[in-house]
Amino acid sequence: MQTLRVELGARAYPIQIGEGLLSDAGLILPHLDLPRAAIVTNTTVAALYLQQLSEALRALGVEVNSIVLADGERYKEWTTLNRIYDALIEGRCDRKTTLIALGGGVIGDLAGFAAATYMRGIPFIQVPTTLLAQVDSSVGGKTGINHPSGKNMIGAFYQPRLVLADTAVLKSLPQRELSAGLAEVIKHGLVRDEKFVVWLEQNVEKVRACDQQALAHAVRRCCEIKAAMVAEDERETGVRALLNFGHTFGHAIESGLGYGKWLHGEAVAAGMVMAADLSWRMGYIAQADVERIVALLKRAGLPTAQPGIAPARLLELMAVDKKTEGGKLRFVLLDGIGAASLRGDVPDGPLQQALAFSAA
Amino acid sequence: MQTLRVELGARAYPIQIGEGLLSDAGLILPHLDLPRAAIVTNTTVAALYLQQLSEALRALGVEVNSIVLADGERYKEWTTLNRIYDALIEGRCDRKTTLIALGGGVIGDLAGFAAATYMRGIPFIQVPTTLLAQVDSSVGGKTGINHPSGKNMIGAFYQPRLVLADTAVLKSLPQRELSAGLAEVIKHGLVRDEKFVVWLEQNVEKVRACDQQALAHAVRRCCEIKAAMVAEDERETGVRALLNFGHTFGHAIESGLGYGKWLHGEAVAAGMVMAADLSWRMGYIAQADVERIVALLKRAGLPTAQPGIAPARLLELMAVDKKTEGGKLRFVLLDGIGAASLRGDVPDGPLQQALAFSAA
Repeated sequence: MQTLRVELGARAYPIQIGEGLLSDAGLILPHLDLPRAAIVTNTTVAALYLQQLSEALRALGVEVNSIVLADGERYKEWTTLNRIYDALIEGRCDRKTTLIALGGGVIGDLAGFAAATYMRGIPFIQVPTTLLAQVDSSVGGKTGINHPSGKNMIGAFYQPRLVLADTAVLKSLPQRELSAGLAEVIKHGLVRDEKFVVWLEQNVEKVRACDQQALAHAVRRCCEIKAAMVAEDERETGVRALLNFGHTFGHAIESGLGYGKWLHGEAVAAGMVMAADLSWRMGYIAQADVERIVALLKRAGLPTAQPGIAPARLLELMAVDKKTEGGKLRFVLLDGIGAASLRGDVPDGPLQQALAFSAA
Repeated sequence: MQTLRVELGARAYPIQIGEGLLSDAGLILPHLDLPRAAIVTNTTVAALYLQQLSEALRALGVEVNSIVLADGERYKEWTTLNRIYDALIEGRCDRKTTLIALGGGVIGDLAGFAAATYMRGIPFIQVPTTLLAQVDSSVGGKTGINHPSGKNMIGAFYQPRLVLADTAVLKSLPQRELSAGLAEVIKHGLVRDEKFVVWLEQNVEKVRACDQQALAHAVRRCCEIKAAMVAEDERETGVRALLNFGHTFGHAIESGLGYGKWLHGEAVAAGMVMAADLSWRMGYIAQADVERIVALLKRAGLPTAQPGIAPARLLELMAVDKKTEGGKLRFVLLDGIGAASLRGDVPDGPLQQALAFSAA
């Protein structure tokens, strides 16, 4: 088992990474205020791991409620959130009950927002079960739900007390979801660490084959990168925004297609190609860099072009994204492989070209 | 004008109290990130003060949206909250748009929760227009909405950047609402400051007559008491809980009657009598103290007995209140006039007697 820390002063917390951690409830126990927990999960994950986790907790004397939601990004909204609140109230869960998110990014975001807002905030633990959640969404405290007009429009920054990443559970993940997670893995390398990109170019097949050592390395390196950026800039007023590379385009793709058609990671992959293409058109990187990125994403089993949404529609969707400021679109663009900057000065010409190219 | 500060480190903020501050948008301007604001208010307050505030802001170059909601505690729920989100999105409000709550406790709680959760948090300013909001709910960062099963069940701690309390607006407040605000004023004295209780015993009629000097003193003293308690214990894990005096009973009364029948302050007044009565039954205060409290509340124009809800029903409602912990009810009880403690050890007997007495 490897342990990292997200250094956030009084709200610092550990990330524990290893094979088989899910049955080791002893790792969770020290983080509970009282021996009471409510596990929020979905039908898919519940069938695989709910019993394992809840029995491990019960064996240590923890009273466990479970809240099983429907599976899918389209459930990341009000109605489902209210189902969590209802279940918490019905189960008489109080301020000292710890909410445990057992699942992927959707469950983590939903459960995290419920934890942030139920009784103005209750203890929260992330047990991510997808690669995407282990390398990205479970770390850093972003929680929230979608609004018909935009992704993650309603939410809160709310840090967990512990992130428990069991790499063994990734063996049960469908290939498509593993690839979607790889999009975020590749993103971490592209914005921050060229050496890690090189490692991925050498090991992407091992990761896709669920080689436990390769997975542990990928999860650990992403968490290290993200933990450092979150510690420096919890509320994303600076460096943390670089982790949105590919996401302005990606969110517009998800929103334009309707949530749930493409996986988040798939949209981010296509979005990263668009952002890389725009970086090249702006003269920040070489065309060979764009090709290198496309090649790696393809080997990861990811789409590298958006699914034919009209450029004007994408632009419209990007304008309501929460990353605009004072009405201006801002983009994370690459300065090279492993380095990125936030740019508010992208002229209309190159942007239109990048959008037109992506729709071609 | 008087200025106090709520000392919360990086999140410290001023409270400004005075007559006619509403037209002085120069007080607001330094707290905006960009000259963009969205004012959330209700139909009643909008008719009186929306134009005054928005024109003062526009005169200083601030772009102003306004969101006018229906008036009443029963609108402090999801549907209304979603109306705020919809309006913010429609108005293309981004992370740098400041949300201004112009209204009483309901508007402050709703707008504050919207500000806490729209795009994971946008700047927020409180312009309280009721006595209750000026002395209590606008200070300290409690925001939220009601759930069918319990008051303020969903919410967040989210501090404003500024509280602007214009005592002149209280002249337009109906007597009943002024009295409701006085319940919270009296509460501050009862839990923390006997001298202030004595001052109230001497000046309650002046306050009810909207004497500006008396109002300014009452608002200031309550804000001082509350600011000190919030600075010491922002998330209510200790001393801040004493400000819930009368609220465990009060919330049960509101919930049992249906929101909107009694004003919050009215329910708190009856709740404080019940809590004082229980304090006497527990031997912490004298019967004369209870009588003194009842006399002051009566002079403030407040109810001093709950409206006949069955004791068993009150108990049931209190059990889902968020102030329970590990399934146990906790009460703020008085140790004297001006001193209170949080008690988790109230035996069933005295509690049943207090409930039965209150229903008599």
